[in-house]
Amino acid sequence: MSEAIIAQTRELDAADPLGQFRGEFILPGDIVYLDGNSLGALPRRTPEAMRRAVEEEWGQGLIRSWNEAGWFEMGARVGGKIAPLIGAHPHEVIACDSTSVNLFKLIAAGLQMRPGRNVVLSEPGNFPTDLYMIEGLERQGLASRRLAEREKLAKALDEDVAVLMLTHAHYKTGELFDMKALTEAAHRAGALVLWDLSHSTGALPVDLAGAKADFAVGCGYKYLCGGPGAPAFAYVAERHHAALAQPLTGWFGHARPFVFSDDYEGAPGIEQLQCGTSPILGLTALEVGVDLIAEIGVRRLHTKSQALSEFFLQCLAELGIDLELVSPAASHARGSQLSFRHDEAYSICQALIARGVIGDFRDPDILRLGFAPAYLRFEDMATAAMQLAQVLAQEEWRSEDIGRRATVT
Amino acid sequence: MSEAIIAQTRELDAADPLGQFRGEFILPGDIVYLDGNSLGALPRRTPEAMRRAVEEEWGQGLIRSWNEAGWFEMGARVGGKIAPLIGAHPHEVIACDSTSVNLFKLIAAGLQMRPGRNVVLSEPGNFPTDLYMIEGLERQGLASRRLAEREKLAKALDEDVAVLMLTHAHYKTGELFDMKALTEAAHRAGALVLWDLSHSTGALPVDLAGAKADFAVGCGYKYLCGGPGAPAFAYVAERHHAALAQPLTGWFGHARPFVFSDDYEGAPGIEQLQCGTSPILGLTALEVGVDLIAEIGVRRLHTKSQALSEFFLQCLAELGIDLELVSPAASHARGSQLSFRHDEAYSICQALIARGVIGDFRDPDILRLGFAPAYLRFEDMATAAMQLAQVLAQEEWRSEDIGRRATVT
Repeated sequence: MSEAIIAQTRELDAADPLGQFRGEFILPGDIVYLDGNSLGALPRRTPEAMRRAVEEEWGQGLIRSWNEAGWFEMGARVGGKIAPLIGAHPHEVIACDSTSVNLFKLIAAGLQMRPGRNVVLSEPGNFPTDLYMIEGLERQGLASRRLAEREKLAKALDEDVAVLMLTHAHYKTGELFDMKALTEAAHRAGALVLWDLSHSTGALPVDLAGAKADFAVGCGYKYLCGGPGAPAFAYVAERHHAALAQPLTGWFGHARPFVFSDDYEGAPGIEQLQCGTSPILGLTALEVGVDLIAEIGVRRLHTKSQALSEFFLQCLAELGIDLELVSPAASHARGSQLSFRHDEAYSICQALIARGVIGDFRDPDILRLGFAPAYLRFEDMATAAMQLAQVLAQEEWRSEDIGRRATVT
Repeated sequence: MSEAIIAQTRELDAADPLGQFRGEFILPGDIVYLDGNSLGALPRRTPEAMRRAVEEEWGQGLIRSWNEAGWFEMGARVGGKIAPLIGAHPHEVIACDSTSVNLFKLIAAGLQMRPGRNVVLSEPGNFPTDLYMIEGLERQGLASRRLAEREKLAKALDEDVAVLMLTHAHYKTGELFDMKALTEAAHRAGALVLWDLSHSTGALPVDLAGAKADFAVGCGYKYLCGGPGAPAFAYVAERHHAALAQPLTGWFGHARPFVFSDDYEGAPGIEQLQCGTSPILGLTALEVGVDLIAEIGVRRLHTKSQALSEFFLQCLAELGIDLELVSPAASHARGSQLSFRHDEAYSICQALIARGVIGDFRDPDILRLGFAPAYLRFEDMATAAMQLAQVLAQEEWRSEDIGRRATVT
C-alpha cells in the first residue's frame, strides 16, 4: 500500500463526521467486521438496557410491567421509531414476528385486496425466504408464484398480478431497485407492491411515502443492530388500513384483547399486524439499535457507506487486485455492500476470516463484503483490502484447514 | 388465622422438598406472586445467561456465533429439552415463533392432512387466540370453525372435522381435559388433535405419547419462566413428520437453507416448523427456564402445586371465606390455579394487588390465582388468604383508587 493511501486513510478517518459513533458499539479488537449486513454489531447501550429489562422490568415488575414498563405498546413504539428511517408515518409501522412471518401476512393481505388475481410476482434469486413465503400461500391454493428477471418484471405485470414483491437492495449483489418506478408500474397494472427493506433499512434512506408503496417488511438484526434473530417490522400505508385483513389473526392484533371474546375483531390500525404476545426481550435490544441508528441519521450513514465502499475499491485498485465486481459499479445504485465473483469465493472468504477479516460467502461463488457505516472506519477498508491482497497473492484458499460453514444472511 | 394453621404453614414449608428452589428465582421481597401462570418469575441464572449471550456471543462472536455458540440448533435444542416435560421425544418438539403462529401452522397442517374435511372444532371460551387463529384460516376460505361446549364435543366430532383443537388446562378455570379420552374420540371420528399446553407445561405432567396426540403447542413465558413474550414451542408426533406440510415456509425450515435455492424444500423433521431466523435472545432466556423446571421435575412440581392449592382452600375455610370456586374442586382435575367468581372480582383483584398479592382478573367476573409450584411457599398461601379475607371484610373493592388495567394471560 502506498504512503499516499495510508495518509489518505488517516485523513478520511480524522475528517469522518460519524467517527465518534464507533465508540457507541462494542466490537472485538482483533477483527475487521464486514458482515454487519448479516448481523449488526452490539450497541454499547444494549447490555444495560437488557439488564434493566430482565432484572427490573421482568424480575421486579413481573406482570405489572405490561402496563408500567410500556410492554403493551412496545411493538408500536419501536415500529414508530423505525418509520422515519423508511419514509413512513409512525402509525404505519409495527415491530413484530420475523421478516418471513410478516411477508406471509402482507402477501396474504395483498391477495385479499385484489380479488380475481392470484399471482405474486418476484424475481428469481430474490432472498430465498421471500420466494418461499409465496410458496406457502401456493400450498394453500391461494397464490401462484411468478418469477421474472428484473428487466422483464414490467412486462410480467399483467392483470393476474395481485402483488409485486421485491427486495429493495439485493442480498447477494446489493443492487437497488428503483422503488418509485417499479411501484408506479405495478400500480398501473392494478397490483399492489410489497418491498422487503431488510438490506436497506438503516444503511440508506428509503422513501416509502414518496414511492407510494403499499406494504413493506424489514429485518431488525442487520443495519438496525437489534441482535441475533431480532423481531422484524412491517409497514402498511395508512390508505390501506381500513381494508387490511391478514390471516394471522392472533390476540395481540385484536381491537380489545382483554375482553377475551370468542370472536376476532382486528385492531383498526397497524396493530392488526401483531399476532402473538410481543417478544419483549427481543424488542428491548431492537429499540436500542433503532434509537442509535436514528440518532446517527440515515442520510449521513448513506454518505459514509458510499465513501467506504468507494475507498475500498480504490484500495483494491492500488493493490492491483482485479476481482469481478457483481455489485453495481455506481455507488448510488447499490446498497451498503460489495460482492465479488470468484470460483474460489468460499475458500477466499474462509482465508480472510482466518486473517481477521469477517465477510461472508453466498452460494455458489460470491464473496460478500458489507460496509455497515455506523461503526466501520476507513482504516478497516485499507486493512481488509491488504488482507485480501495477501490471501490472493499467497493462494491461501488452497489450504486444507478451511472448513465449510454457513452464516445467516 | 388459628395457631394451628400458622404452625402447619411452618411445618409444610420446612418439609417441602422443593423449598430449596425458591432461591433459584429472583422475586420482589414485598409481594406474594400468584400470577406465574401469566408471566413466570425470573430464574436467578437468567441475567448471567443473557449477559453472556449479549456481550460474548453477540458482541464478541458476532456472526460466528451462529456456528460457534450453537445458535443454528437452538430452536431444536430448547425444544428437545421441553420434550420430556410433555411426554414427547426430543426430535418431536421445537421452540420457535409465538403460540399463536404455531397454532396457525398446525391447524393448517392438520387441514392439509385431512382432505375433504374443513371443520376445526373447539370449545367456546377457549383461550381467545386459539379461536382467533381458526378464524384466520376461515378468512382464507380454508377452514370452518365449530364450537361446542365440552360435554357436547364428542357428539360434534363428525366426518367434517379435520382437527380438534383444545387447551389442556383452561386458562380461566384451570379445568383439565382428559387428553387421552378426547384424543381417542377424535381419532375414532377420523380427526387429528391439536393440544394447547400453555397452562400445563411445567406445572403438571403431560403425556402426549400416551395420549397418542398428533400436534401440540405451548407457551414459553408461563410455568417455563422464559420471560415476557418468550418463544413458544410446537410438537408434531413423529408418525406425522413425513406428511407434514405447513404454510409458513420460511428459510429456517428449509432442508438446506444455505444453498439459497429459489424453491422451498421443507426440512425432513420438526425443523420444518421453523419459519424465520431463530430469536436467539428470547431462546436464551427460555432455555434457562426450561433447564430449571426440568431439574425440579414436573412430577414433583405437580405434587406441590396440588398441595399449595389445597392448603389455600383450607386457609380460606379456616378464615370463613366462602367464595364461589369455578375451578374443579378436585385437585387432580385442575391445573395449577384456582379461580373464583365474584361480581366485584375486578376490584377485589385490584385491592389484593394494593396489598401486595398479585393475582389477575379475567372478564367478566373471575379472580384468578395461580400457584407456580417452583417458587411459591405455603407461607404465601396463608398470607394471600389472610389478605383476601381483609379485602372482603373491609369491602376494599369499593375504593375509588382502584383503576382498570389489563394483564397478559
